[in-house]
Amino acid sequence: MNIPEGLNDLLPEEVLKRRFLENKISQVFKGWGYQEIITPTFEFYGMLAKGAGSIMKKEMIKFFDREGNIIALRPEMTTSMARVASTKMQHMPKPLRFYYIGNVFRYDNKVGSQREFCQAGVELIGINSSKSDAEVIALAIECLKNGGLKKFFIDIGHINFFNGVMQSIKVEEERKQEIKKAILNKDFVLLEKILSLEDIKDKEKEFILKIPTLRGKEKVLEEAEKMINNKLSLSTLKEIKEVYNLLRDYGLEEYILIDLGIIRDFEYYTGIIFEGYTDYLGFPVCGGGRYDNLCSKFGRDLPSTGFAIGLERLIMALEREGINSLDLKKPDQYIVCYRNNKENFRKALKAAGNLRKKGLIVELEIGRREFTEVLNYARSKGVKYIVRVDVNQLSKIKRVEVVSGKEEIINYE
Amino acid sequence: MNIPEGLNDLLPEEVLKRRFLENKISQVFKGWGYQEIITPTFEFYGMLAKGAGSIMKKEMIKFFDREGNIIALRPEMTTSMARVASTKMQHMPKPLRFYYIGNVFRYDNKVGSQREFCQAGVELIGINSSKSDAEVIALAIECLKNGGLKKFFIDIGHINFFNGVMQSIKVEEERKQEIKKAILNKDFVLLEKILSLEDIKDKEKEFILKIPTLRGKEKVLEEAEKMINNKLSLSTLKEIKEVYNLLRDYGLEEYILIDLGIIRDFEYYTGIIFEGYTDYLGFPVCGGGRYDNLCSKFGRDLPSTGFAIGLERLIMALEREGINSLDLKKPDQYIVCYRNNKENFRKALKAAGNLRKKGLIVELEIGRREFTEVLNYARSKGVKYIVRVDVNQLSKIKRVEVVSGKEEIINYE
Repeated sequence: MNIPEGLNDLLPEEVLKRRFLENKISQVFKGWGYQEIITPTFEFYGMLAKGAGSIMKKEMIKFFDREGNIIALRPEMTTSMARVASTKMQHMPKPLRFYYIGNVFRYDNKVGSQREFCQAGVELIGINSSKSDAEVIALAIECLKNGGLKKFFIDIGHINFFNGVMQSIKVEEERKQEIKKAILNKDFVLLEKILSLEDIKDKEKEFILKIPTLRGKEKVLEEAEKMINNKLSLSTLKEIKEVYNLLRDYGLEEYILIDLGIIRDFEYYTGIIFEGYTDYLGFPVCGGGRYDNLCSKFGRDLPSTGFAIGLERLIMALEREGINSLDLKKPDQYIVCYRNNKENFRKALKAAGNLRKKGLIVELEIGRREFTEVLNYARSKGVKYIVRVDVNQLSKIKRVEVVSGKEEIINYE
Repeated sequence: MNIPEGLNDLLPEEVLKRRFLENKISQVFKGWGYQEIITPTFEFYGMLAKGAGSIMKKEMIKFFDREGNIIALRPEMTTSMARVASTKMQHMPKPLRFYYIGNVFRYDNKVGSQREFCQAGVELIGINSSKSDAEVIALAIECLKNGGLKKFFIDIGHINFFNGVMQSIKVEEERKQEIKKAILNKDFVLLEKILSLEDIKDKEKEFILKIPTLRGKEKVLEEAEKMINNKLSLSTLKEIKEVYNLLRDYGLEEYILIDLGIIRDFEYYTGIIFEGYTDYLGFPVCGGGRYDNLCSKFGRDLPSTGFAIGLERLIMALEREGINSLDLKKPDQYIVCYRNNKENFRKALKAAGNLRKKGLIVELEIGRREFTEVLNYARSKGVKYIVRVDVNQLSKIKRVEVVSGKEEIINYE
């Protein structure tokens, strides 16, 4: 292997897909009033750790720099965005609407997982309301739609639904973390095993095992309401309902599921959390939520909501959906060749320049290949036309269609 | 300081400039038949070192990964492009035309220098001819022009001009490196000092001191021809002249200077080398050259030419040139607000959606601010219009021009 584990080279066809989606998504971000920020690829570990839980801290790619500082490649973007909002935009009127598109870096224990991947996302900073949560979720839906995805759901939950349940049962903190991790990994066998060892009431056990199944339309909220009796969890149902209703006003109900089993693997969330799922991936294509206390770690009290789309994941989902949204239209490709003398060369340069001005893709022949060789090259590269320049011929400039061999006399000056 | 030395946050206005130039430059690359490749941000140090000289090796940002491999953040892109061309595109018809736009990373001893910066460049791989050198130089000029730069020169030299001179004088290798470094840094005081200590003929001393001044139009070649008598240096003059003449055919003579004092700080160059200069920067805005032996380090014999533009440098040059090419036109900004009831909210969402479809930038008011507050916010953000929705009013949807306060009744459905 030429490159380290978990990394990739993107060849031209793959890059086209990536750039196509970056454009589609950033168009939506801009249209909704979000402005792009670019932060450094690596930062002080201590800074990035402010937004990271214990799992993420382990997964960060860390090193010492020349000065002896502990540095990490950014594992996600939200912490850096919160830093910028808190330290460089403190005098700007709120809310701030930021977006980013960039690579993030993590070790991961799973086989075949990527250490570098691309995220596109937004942060809506400085406001705490159901309307701001709804805007961010609506924006996520709009991005997936504009990217070409047809069948997907955004699962909406709340960080405190599970927290409330955990507070109400009497189990050691360590055990609670294990329960959380099992639900996070959807490992129900392990979950049952952990619960069977603990001194929890049967009714509570039953309910915890039921949490991951609480997914669906509004009815789920009623169902949950009957089963729980802790205040914290109950209060989240009202918040979820509010956001759900707003998204109905947006006309986006068809894309929404309530999912009380969502547990996101970031420590900074404080409210509504959400994840985007398609039938074609076993993991979310996007995710986000409310984080009201992250900016305060940088000295500012700025309640916020954000989300990120995994671009590699979105491309995978689009390809598996089997639709043609990623069949990218490319401009016609040309090759301009010429008999080897100065006058022909100059005319060929002029023809190439004029074709490029029309938005076409034009290679100039720079070797000394015979026409038949150029033709073979053109065929293997999917080039549509060859332009032949020969001022000594009566037909000075000819355009040859590569597939058919059909010739036309053309003036490209 | 919140972020490590040599790094930057780009705030929205700066990002707009960056993205504008990236688009302008990649349009040109594509039009000339170059295809984009994306390689990993970090790679094995041993791989990246194949393209690095002793200075670059020291400047690379290195670390150990979890598996104990020595990793480096890429200090430039050409080595990775050569790796991809040699190991993943070996069966593709030649020449290969690749481009890249991405960040590279270096320590640097100079104060205030950047550790992360963005390069856009191309590699024309698999052909060794003056025409391919000329194409790459012409492309560099086209990119700078399309980026908006008005006054600049591309200095063309040859790696073997200086090498030939050094071979012909009898000085220790270490001393030669010092001479090279002094010329590279344009430190002529040091250069004279080094030369005065050495047992070199006066005529040769005089010539070495003259090398950095051999810059100008074609006459420089005649001047140099009279002064040198080693075959290697002499042969380079012919090559330079050939490329110069081809660039005259391109109609680009006005942008070209011959500069026999160019010494590029990369070990992989083997032929023509060039650098782009403006009056506004003390360092090149772009640079490149021929490297015929790099791909062979990855097992393929692929002679190549390439160049890279430093995007931060180009932005600096454009700003110092004082022209308006970076005064970016943005679409009009709108804020849509509404009296707080469901019907108004829905109408406001519809109006916002329809304005966005027209390519406008639309923020939805998601707080509970009074109109005067929204107006202040709009003023401070340079928003042009506020759309007010109130279905209970006779004039259901009004558009207010922020600066003048002028109102119009508008239908956005």
